[in-house]
Amino acid sequence: MEKTQSFIASNKNRFLNELFDLLRIPSVSADKKFKSDVIKAAEFLAQKLMAAGMDNVELMQTEGNPIVYGEKIIDTTKPTVLVYGHYDVQPADPYDLWVSPPFEPIVRDEKIWARGACDDKGQTYMHVKAIESMIVNDELPCNVKVIIEGEEEVGSSNLSPFLKKYKEKLKADVVLISDTSMIANDCPSITVGLRGLSYLEVEVVGCNRDLHSGVYGGAVANPINVLCEMIASLKDENKHITIAGFYEDVRELSADERKALNLRPFNLEEYKKELKLTDVEGEKDFTTLERVSIRPTVDVNGIWGGYIGEGAKTVLPAKASAKISMRLVPNQQSQKISELFATHFKKIAPKSVTVKVTAHHGGEPVITPTDTVAYRAAAKAMEKTFGIVPLPGYEGGSIPIVASFETILGLKTVLFGFGLDTDALHSPNENYGLFNFYKGIETIPYFYKYYAEMS
Amino acid sequence: MEKTQSFIASNKNRFLNELFDLLRIPSVSADKKFKSDVIKAAEFLAQKLMAAGMDNVELMQTEGNPIVYGEKIIDTTKPTVLVYGHYDVQPADPYDLWVSPPFEPIVRDEKIWARGACDDKGQTYMHVKAIESMIVNDELPCNVKVIIEGEEEVGSSNLSPFLKKYKEKLKADVVLISDTSMIANDCPSITVGLRGLSYLEVEVVGCNRDLHSGVYGGAVANPINVLCEMIASLKDENKHITIAGFYEDVRELSADERKALNLRPFNLEEYKKELKLTDVEGEKDFTTLERVSIRPTVDVNGIWGGYIGEGAKTVLPAKASAKISMRLVPNQQSQKISELFATHFKKIAPKSVTVKVTAHHGGEPVITPTDTVAYRAAAKAMEKTFGIVPLPGYEGGSIPIVASFETILGLKTVLFGFGLDTDALHSPNENYGLFNFYKGIETIPYFYKYYAEMS
Repeated sequence: MEKTQSFIASNKNRFLNELFDLLRIPSVSADKKFKSDVIKAAEFLAQKLMAAGMDNVELMQTEGNPIVYGEKIIDTTKPTVLVYGHYDVQPADPYDLWVSPPFEPIVRDEKIWARGACDDKGQTYMHVKAIESMIVNDELPCNVKVIIEGEEEVGSSNLSPFLKKYKEKLKADVVLISDTSMIANDCPSITVGLRGLSYLEVEVVGCNRDLHSGVYGGAVANPINVLCEMIASLKDENKHITIAGFYEDVRELSADERKALNLRPFNLEEYKKELKLTDVEGEKDFTTLERVSIRPTVDVNGIWGGYIGEGAKTVLPAKASAKISMRLVPNQQSQKISELFATHFKKIAPKSVTVKVTAHHGGEPVITPTDTVAYRAAAKAMEKTFGIVPLPGYEGGSIPIVASFETILGLKTVLFGFGLDTDALHSPNENYGLFNFYKGIETIPYFYKYYAEMS
Repeated sequence: MEKTQSFIASNKNRFLNELFDLLRIPSVSADKKFKSDVIKAAEFLAQKLMAAGMDNVELMQTEGNPIVYGEKIIDTTKPTVLVYGHYDVQPADPYDLWVSPPFEPIVRDEKIWARGACDDKGQTYMHVKAIESMIVNDELPCNVKVIIEGEEEVGSSNLSPFLKKYKEKLKADVVLISDTSMIANDCPSITVGLRGLSYLEVEVVGCNRDLHSGVYGGAVANPINVLCEMIASLKDENKHITIAGFYEDVRELSADERKALNLRPFNLEEYKKELKLTDVEGEKDFTTLERVSIRPTVDVNGIWGGYIGEGAKTVLPAKASAKISMRLVPNQQSQKISELFATHFKKIAPKSVTVKVTAHHGGEPVITPTDTVAYRAAAKAMEKTFGIVPLPGYEGGSIPIVASFETILGLKTVLFGFGLDTDALHSPNENYGLFNFYKGIETIPYFYKYYAEMS
């Protein structure tokens, strides 16, 4: 990989400028008004895959946003890596909390600042450039197929049908995804566990219209108060979730497993300081590392109701709403948990209101194996470029499609992420270290090398 | 009052058209962007007071919106009525729930539909037209002074300083206000009790920024969940408020008083049907009529936090906020209750968050006497035009300035309202019956007549 590495070294500025062009496209999949930008981002990546020397590049249509496809088959007797990434990003609001505008990327303090800088444009683009570098220098040691989707941030609902439809076309030996983080720049890791997700929207309706809180207050249910009471009751005083059957399928780790998990470097005081927290809060009898990885959660992601403008309005509102999500752990099932939640939420509603529950997307929790050639190749590649053997890591986020790759394509995944927990994914001021972006581009070719050699 | 009544009968259309002109001005005091409309409404009323034949009409400046003043002194040995009204209105949002636009008044089903149709432009304008009718026909039997303010819906914070400053100018014998409702069109009533108000805004802050709910969920306090828990804890299972000391000053009514209060016609099934409620909800051991009149409340008027746009965003937000108000009853004090709330709310906050509490305006609960000449004159006037002796009534709303008239000017108030509870004050589709508007204009002159005769 010598020529490849020296090519990377001499093209760093160009790689970064190209990523900036991609980051300037506000491809927010959750909001219809960005629809044309979503398409623009897909077209941009297709063009870059072609420029990288990939073949049969196309925008493959789905019922939602297109999936960018490209391949380079050098020898059908060699193994094939299927790279997955996504070009859509989370909404950037609240915009006023960004130090620099979310879709005007900039380098500051050795970091790239923009929505999608890490999740997942930055990490996806590492692969595009690593593949280009290997193809251009004739050092690609095995076959590669790339799919980059545009609906990851809204639940990837069209990916499974796509995988089913193109099972033959997507035939491969392993899936490689960079959409996770490492423990630290001096403590690389490969993610082996991910939480799943159930995401629902609830609406509590009291009266048929907004009422004067003086005339009716005290006699008529206030949907905001009721919603608050219902949400509050979802956890008990130990922050244990009260939904009937919620913990039924949760895999409890052994004492040894929990001990191993807690070995990773973690300083609670630094964690609190970095987040400017007065204190952490979570399920009793579990550590912070456990709470964010092997334990399920319920969080309100958004709430609204009544008068939220300037000043005071004495209204008793007709309704109140919330977006509520649960992070799931093996062996919980997203659909089952969503149904348990809906049943529970309707059951705890007082007679004085009516409740609507709508399910958004979900995703299954995942454990990826460490005893595969692909995992060993990834670990060896990281050891090569970082000079440190990476740790296996558990992450709290969800990549629902990992389960789909396994069930539909029969493929194991390597979660080869180069981000950090401090990259502010989904938050204002998302960022991605230049170190991480370049280290990713340098490390990926070694994965191909070792994977081809060891297969 | 014969000439006056016949003048009213022949000018009904003009009176209504003028009110429509006033209703077209969106004088929303809570929102700065309507500032120029607020002034426009004041100027409109000043012009109409002059046209009505009043003297010394002017816009009197305050630190906020101006107060419209006018007077007609016919004989300094006769008693003086001080009329109070307000020309500002509540915000009209949510606009999409209005059948016809809030600032385009229209008559439909014998009712005037517009923001302010009743509260308080419609009711205030009855006085302007009644006074005009008496002056024009030379039948005004005593002196009258009018003040119409523009900050009632945001707490009347500049009215008390105004009353103090112009104590001499505002010298009178009784205050007459139409800003309340009657029990029904065939059951007229005069309000003798009003609830007070404490209104606060709270903010719960967790982390210093929005977080990814997957990466941090379960280990870091979610300010929305925490706010919900705090709000839920404000009432116990009997809907009794848990704030320490909250009920300390509440005047408990005697069994006889409660019995009398519950004598007024009230049909719970019709009430539920009219509001499309599945059930009522309120403090245990009190009737609906009691819950909305002689018992204090706590209601969330607005709540917001996290992602409230389209679709799903897996954010663990940095903060959540709510507007919370309490309706107070005699002898609770607004300032004391606001302080008790703030202390309590900070005390119940978990260590994992910080809490800010800001007080908006408040107002004192009121009981007006029934044993005065003014009350008897008002009752006799209603009996004259309705053919029915009015009942004394308790209302759930607040008119904080009634207490100010008593403490600053030493004046008792007659709450001479002609609205109905179904007028949708503060709600979309506010309306005011043509019957009520005209009946008010006809009844008011008789009040002057009997008040002058009985004084």
